[in-house]
Amino acid sequence: MPGAGTDRTKEWIGTKGPVIVLVEPQLAENIGAVARAMGNFALSELRLVKPRDGWPNPDASRTASGADRILEEAKLYPTLDAAIADCTLVIAATARQHDQIKEVVGPEQAARDLFPHVEAGNKAALVFGRERNGLEVHEVGLANKILTLPVNPAFASLNLGQAVIICAYEFYKLASGNALPFEMPNFSPPAAKGKFEAFFATVVNELERHEFFRPPEKRDNMIVNLRNIFLRLNPTEQDMQTLHGVVRTLAQGAKGPATGGFFAAERRSCCAIC
Amino acid sequence: MPGAGTDRTKEWIGTKGPVIVLVEPQLAENIGAVARAMGNFALSELRLVKPRDGWPNPDASRTASGADRILEEAKLYPTLDAAIADCTLVIAATARQHDQIKEVVGPEQAARDLFPHVEAGNKAALVFGRERNGLEVHEVGLANKILTLPVNPAFASLNLGQAVIICAYEFYKLASGNALPFEMPNFSPPAAKGKFEAFFATVVNELERHEFFRPPEKRDNMIVNLRNIFLRLNPTEQDMQTLHGVVRTLAQGAKGPATGGFFAAERRSCCAIC
Repeated sequence: MPGAGTDRTKEWIGTKGPVIVLVEPQLAENIGAVARAMGNFALSELRLVKPRDGWPNPDASRTASGADRILEEAKLYPTLDAAIADCTLVIAATARQHDQIKEVVGPEQAARDLFPHVEAGNKAALVFGRERNGLEVHEVGLANKILTLPVNPAFASLNLGQAVIICAYEFYKLASGNALPFEMPNFSPPAAKGKFEAFFATVVNELERHEFFRPPEKRDNMIVNLRNIFLRLNPTEQDMQTLHGVVRTLAQGAKGPATGGFFAAERRSCCAIC
Repeated sequence: MPGAGTDRTKEWIGTKGPVIVLVEPQLAENIGAVARAMGNFALSELRLVKPRDGWPNPDASRTASGADRILEEAKLYPTLDAAIADCTLVIAATARQHDQIKEVVGPEQAARDLFPHVEAGNKAALVFGRERNGLEVHEVGLANKILTLPVNPAFASLNLGQAVIICAYEFYKLASGNALPFEMPNFSPPAAKGKFEAFFATVVNELERHEFFRPPEKRDNMIVNLRNIFLRLNPTEQDMQTLHGVVRTLAQGAKGPATGGFFAAERRSCCAIC
């Protein structure tokens, strides 16, 4: 099931992206996890070179968690050469140093290489090897570039789906302009200085009334420090109204907004907390 | 097993990083996958709030693939409040929009927030919710910021381990200065212009000899275009020696380097391809 945060009204795939090629993947559950990772980041084209346990494989569907369309449309190839024959940029992922004179990039740079390439209408492939052994030397040799991840050198082996999702994430982050699915709601504009000072005057007055500023020679400095605490809030207009009410309730015992108390006049537009 | 690319001589954890908090995780295999993801990116401290199936749980070890130390040292808490009581920056991951007036960041910005915080010796937490339902409103309310991922809106639900690894990756990328575990080997310096032109003169001479440049009025232009093809190689000194030999073999039938032929005088230092 697509699950949390998924908007079923949105088009399934919106981005041109690289083909993901898996060379002799051993576990169908990893193929499914790769499909899910691709779907999460809007990649659609999966190619499989000789999956160990044959294809199609029903075990893949369980971990795909709804990305079945990617599995159903996955294409099968007898060799890596055949799988990348129509690609004009091929990047091979490997955790091992190869003594090949070939540019080595991380996932972020790979995205920067792939994005303009596919945007221009060219086909590109990101190639991942076997879970146990990765890609062979001659397979890495077919690629234009080598991709590796900045990992903890003491524990460098990523699960196949994890390696794919990091690459897919970096690609989608770039392709989508790093747009997040939602932002902080903008309920209220920032408080103008006048509103802030009106609030702060209430705070100071109430504290004076309760003899907070002692000894008197420290009063001015205490007020400077107290103002700075509230200034660090970067308060909105609503924050100021809310805090104004909080201070009056604490100082004077006025009841909160639900009683039609101090917010009554502004009830419709004001209440950021109730 | 730590597997491909792992260097057993390296210290297991080298980075100060945020605590990862899982709230009521449902599947032990996901807890294991989170531990593996943490190990891959050098995070060490895992906290669990009421895992559904109890703790410790042997099922977690299978997917941890060697990150058992993180599982063994994981701490158990009865509530999220207790799990984050010592943290001074808390970021809650959620795929759903919450109507809370709280800053929303992606994994990259979260890393930029977390890194100076933990570097300064403060404790920070990244909090992830239940696989099925994520975090509850009051749990998100405890956090300083909300984290969400730039995902395909039509398929927005990430596996728990996948969500954690992307955040861990962004943190480690920043903390490690995006250093990759290896680079392109630097076998040879770039070819000086003189070496390049000596090679190119051989190409042109051999092609002249075989009457390649026809008709004669196109000769100069053909040479400009041909030089540009080889210039785009950005050749190294060794590339030039190798290609020099290739051209001579093709044009004159000279045998390759293994015969003690044209590379003989420079044999020790030259051969980039054999």
